[in-house]
Amino acid sequence: MDDRFAGMALKRKRDTAEPAPTLGEIGLNQFAPYLMNRVIARWNANMAEDLKAMDLSTAKMRALAVLSITPSVTINELSVFAVTEQSTMSRTLDSLEEQGFIRRQPRVEDMRVRDVTITEEGRTVFDKVWPTMYDSLLKMFDGVEEDEYRAFLSVLHRVLHNIRKHDI
Amino acid sequence: MDDRFAGMALKRKRDTAEPAPTLGEIGLNQFAPYLMNRVIARWNANMAEDLKAMDLSTAKMRALAVLSITPSVTINELSVFAVTEQSTMSRTLDSLEEQGFIRRQPRVEDMRVRDVTITEEGRTVFDKVWPTMYDSLLKMFDGVEEDEYRAFLSVLHRVLHNIRKHDI
Repeated sequence: MDDRFAGMALKRKRDTAEPAPTLGEIGLNQFAPYLMNRVIARWNANMAEDLKAMDLSTAKMRALAVLSITPSVTINELSVFAVTEQSTMSRTLDSLEEQGFIRRQPRVEDMRVRDVTITEEGRTVFDKVWPTMYDSLLKMFDGVEEDEYRAFLSVLHRVLHNIRKHDI
Repeated sequence: MDDRFAGMALKRKRDTAEPAPTLGEIGLNQFAPYLMNRVIARWNANMAEDLKAMDLSTAKMRALAVLSITPSVTINELSVFAVTEQSTMSRTLDSLEEQGFIRRQPRVEDMRVRDVTITEEGRTVFDKVWPTMYDSLLKMFDGVEEDEYRAFLSVLHRVLHNIRKHDI
């Protein structure tokens, strides 16, 4: 791995009035969005494969994951957290409701909003999925020290803050 | 942001024989694949929007990006680097060839392999796209110091090494 240019990607343009470096100067391996695309495509593909064996889709798993740790959310919030289009999330919730894994109820103060909550059955399903996800996380970060992981998360938080459209 | 548990995600299971922490204990904001999915979905959506204005697809831009910095690659290699299904990449190359942006030639030593190279016209197109991509990179990492970016890349390299299926 050639890391002579690591960090230079951001340096040049900030420090001086020089023109932007080219992709050739930076190198694909120093271009973070490329690396993140590689990593996350593989993570998602592995996850989809594992979930298939449990008869779950990625959208369903993500909805259950979010609902397992929040008392209740709206469909809007859920589609943001689950990184899933709202129309897909609506269909996903229809199916999860039919399976008895979630419940949707109009909010008393505002009947136009429907709050989504997980059922005990839904929680049981997610509890079965979670160990696989956690094992995948450990495999993915094998050899990464705790403080490196912490710093990695901190950059991700900053980057999400810079790039996100929603306030959540 | 609650980062009391930052780093704990990886710690618990490695250090002891304790059971895996739950997602609730770790928290969504300490679960790196979630954050990476949020970030990269937004990056890709922004990029697709910018590219649309230049009449380019994401797959085309990625193919041109990779070809702009390598003398020649095979379709296999290109589909890995561009994080694009091989069938999609084949169609993308058909279209790029029609537009005169790339060239495909059978390799002399092995006629079954076709090497893909970029044309001068293709290079010109990518040179027009690149400043937008580079600006997006700077925006995305606004407030991230050079050494933080370097450490971030280093974890990404490690993680890609752990998770990838291909040797490239």
